Amino acid sequence: MSTALREAFGNASSTHQIGQAARQRLEAARASIARFLHASPAEFVFTSGGTESNNLAIFGLVRNLPGPKKHVITSITEHPSVLEACRQLEYEGVAVTYVGVNANGWVDCGEIVRQLRPETVLVSVMHANNETGVLQPIAQIAEALRGAGQKIYFHCDGVQAVGKVPVDVEALSVDLYSVSAHKISAPKGIGGLYVRKGTPLRGIQFGGRHERERRAGTENVPGAIAFARAVELCDRNSITHFVNLRDQFESEMLALGEIEINGGAAPRLPNTSNLLFRGVSGEGLLIALDMKGMAVSTGSACSSGSVEPSPVLLAMGRSRDEARSSVRFSFGRDNSRAEVQALIDAVRECVTRLRKTSRVERPVYA
Amino acid sequence: MSTALREAFGNASSTHQIGQAARQRLEAARASIARFLHASPAEFVFTSGGTESNNLAIFGLVRNLPGPKKHVITSITEHPSVLEACRQLEYEGVAVTYVGVNANGWVDCGEIVRQLRPETVLVSVMHANNETGVLQPIAQIAEALRGAGQKIYFHCDGVQAVGKVPVDVEALSVDLYSVSAHKISAPKGIGGLYVRKGTPLRGIQFGGRHERERRAGTENVPGAIAFARAVELCDRNSITHFVNLRDQFESEMLALGEIEINGGAAPRLPNTSNLLFRGVSGEGLLIALDMKGMAVSTGSACSSGSVEPSPVLLAMGRSRDEARSSVRFSFGRDNSRAEVQALIDAVRECVTRLRKTSRVERPVYA
Repeated sequence: MSTALREAFGNASSTHQIGQAARQRLEAARASIARFLHASPAEFVFTSGGTESNNLAIFGLVRNLPGPKKHVITSITEHPSVLEACRQLEYEGVAVTYVGVNANGWVDCGEIVRQLRPETVLVSVMHANNETGVLQPIAQIAEALRGAGQKIYFHCDGVQAVGKVPVDVEALSVDLYSVSAHKISAPKGIGGLYVRKGTPLRGIQFGGRHERERRAGTENVPGAIAFARAVELCDRNSITHFVNLRDQFESEMLALGEIEINGGAAPRLPNTSNLLFRGVSGEGLLIALDMKGMAVSTGSACSSGSVEPSPVLLAMGRSRDEARSSVRFSFGRDNSRAEVQALIDAVRECVTRLRKTSRVERPVYA
Repeated sequence: MSTALREAFGNASSTHQIGQAARQRLEAARASIARFLHASPAEFVFTSGGTESNNLAIFGLVRNLPGPKKHVITSITEHPSVLEACRQLEYEGVAVTYVGVNANGWVDCGEIVRQLRPETVLVSVMHANNETGVLQPIAQIAEALRGAGQKIYFHCDGVQAVGKVPVDVEALSVDLYSVSAHKISAPKGIGGLYVRKGTPLRGIQFGGRHERERRAGTENVPGAIAFARAVELCDRNSITHFVNLRDQFESEMLALGEIEINGGAAPRLPNTSNLLFRGVSGEGLLIALDMKGMAVSTGSACSSGSVEPSPVLLAMGRSRDEARSSVRFSFGRDNSRAEVQALIDAVRECVTRLRKTSRVERPVYA
C-alpha cells in the first residue's frame, strides 16, 4: 500500500501518462482478484468496502428490475449491511422474507424453496457467518434456484469467507458475490463486487462513468493494488495454518468444561471459534483478555456499542444469557502456535476467575 | 498514511484497546477537519470520496423529506456526481431545475430566486468549478435562500475549493458541504460531508450504526488520519504560492496571443487556469505536453473517455470548437516557479508547432 501510494498516484481516469500508469495498475489488480474468484475482470467492480458491496448488490439489482411486485428472500443471520438494505427495500415497497436457521446456524435450503413466489427476484445468503464462521450451503441453494422455473438472482455475501475457504463463483453458481479487502489484512476503504455477466445491475452511486458505469467515483488505485496483493497472499497453506490453530484452541477450551462451540456441528471457517462459556460474562472475558493485549469480540463490530445480545446467536436458539456468555475468537494469518497457547492460558485463567467471582456474587436463596 | 496503516490498524467500532486506539485517532482526525471547516466534529461524516459525499447530501436529504411534490435547483456546470444524482432524483419523481451560467461561468443568484417554488427543498451549487476554477457566490445565494420565507436546504460541493480558498461553513451559511481528500494530496478513497446540526439527512448506505447512523461501513481510519494531515498542511501560504504560480503562467500565456482565459473575469481558484488556445486542438496539446512529462487535462477526469467537448465550457457560451481548443492547468502545492517556467516554455513551443501544423494541413479554398 505504501509503495502503491507513491507509484500509482495518478487519476486512473485521466488520459495523461501518469493517469494511464495508474489505470494499468488498477486493471492488473482487478484481473488478479477476478482470477482468484474464478471470474473475468469485467465481472469485478471495486467498491469502498463490504457494506457498499452488499448495498450495491441488493439495491443495484432489485431497484433496477421491473415491478410493481417484487420479493426478496434472505436469512435472519445475515450481516447488518444485508439486513438493513433489505429493511430499506421493504420501506420502498418490496416484500422480504427472512428465513430462520437451525441450532447450528444453518439456513435450510428447502425452506428457501418453500418461500419462493412468482415475484421472487433475489435470494441473498452469506457464504460464512461473521460471528460464528458457519458456512452456508451456497452451491446447494444455487442449484435449487436454478430449478425454480424462473430466473431468481442469487447474491452471496462472501466478505467473511474470502481467504479462509476457497472461493469459486462458478462452482458456487452465484450471480453476485461481495468481498472486502480489510478482512484479509489489506487496508480499509476498498472492497468489491463480483457481478456475473448479464446480471442487470445498475449503479447506486451516480457521477462519472467509472467501473463500466457501475460505480461512480475516482478509483482508489492504491487500495486496489493492496487488495490484489492481499489476495495473492491467500493460499491453501494459510487455510491449513488456520485449522491447526483453531483445533489446538478448541480442543483445549472444551477440556475446561461447561463450554460449547456455537455452530460447532456445522461446516465452519477454519479461523473462527465462537464459544459459549457457561457462567461467564462475555463482556467480562473480553475486558479481561483485552487487559492482556488479546483482542476478541462479543459480536459483530458493525453492531458493537449495542447492549443487545447477538441476534445471530439468538436466531440459533441460544437464550439471551447464553448469547451474553459467548465470545468470538478469530485467528489471523500472522498468529503463531505460541500466541494461541498464550491465548489458551489467558482464557483458562480468566474463565476460572470470572466463574469464581460470579459464583461468589450470586446471592444464595436456600 | 503509511504510518497510520501500521499504527491505527484496529477496527474503530471494536471495543478492545486496539479498536479504541483507532477510534481515538479517527475522532481526532474528524475534529481536525471539522475545525478547518469551522464546523463541530459531530457535523462531519466521513465518506469514501467526493462522489459519495455529493450523493449522500442530495439523496440523503431529498429522499428523506416528505413528498409527494419536491423540487430541487442546481446549475448546469455542476460536477457529474451532482448532475447525475439530480437526474436520478428526476427518475424518482422529483422536479429539478438546472439554471445556466453567464459567459464567465457564474451562476446568477437572482435566477435561482426566480426559480424557487413552494415545494423547493434543496439548492445545490458548487463552491468552485472543477474545470475552470470559477468561484460561485455561495454566501450570496445562502442569504437569498434565507430570505425566501420557507426552509430551503443549501448544499455546496466544495470538493475543488478546499485547500485552495479559505472555507468557513458558517460564513458560507450552507447546510451541507462536500469535501474530498485526494484533491488536497491525501490518498484516494476518503472524503467527507459537513452536515449542519438539525439537517434531516438519512444515510444512503445501510448496515452498521457507524458515523452516527449516517454512513454504514467499517471506518477507514488510516484514510481519515491522512485526510486530517493534508488539511493541516493547507495554509494561507500555499494559497499565495498558488496565486504566484498562476499569475506567472497566465501573464506569459496571454502574451502568446490568440489565447483567452475561460472564466477569466470571474473570481477563480488560485491554482486553476483553463485556457482557450485558438487554432489548437486541446487534445493535441495535452498529448504533446504529456510527452514532455507534463500532465494537463481537457476536462473533468470524471467525464474523460468522452469524445464530447466540455459541457461546462459549452454552458459558458463557448462553441464546440472553442471548447475543444481549451485545456485545464492545475498547480499543486509542490510545484515550483522553475517547473511553471518549464511548462510555459513547453506550451509556447507546442502551441507554435500545433498552430503551424494545423495551418499547413488546412486546405486553402481561394
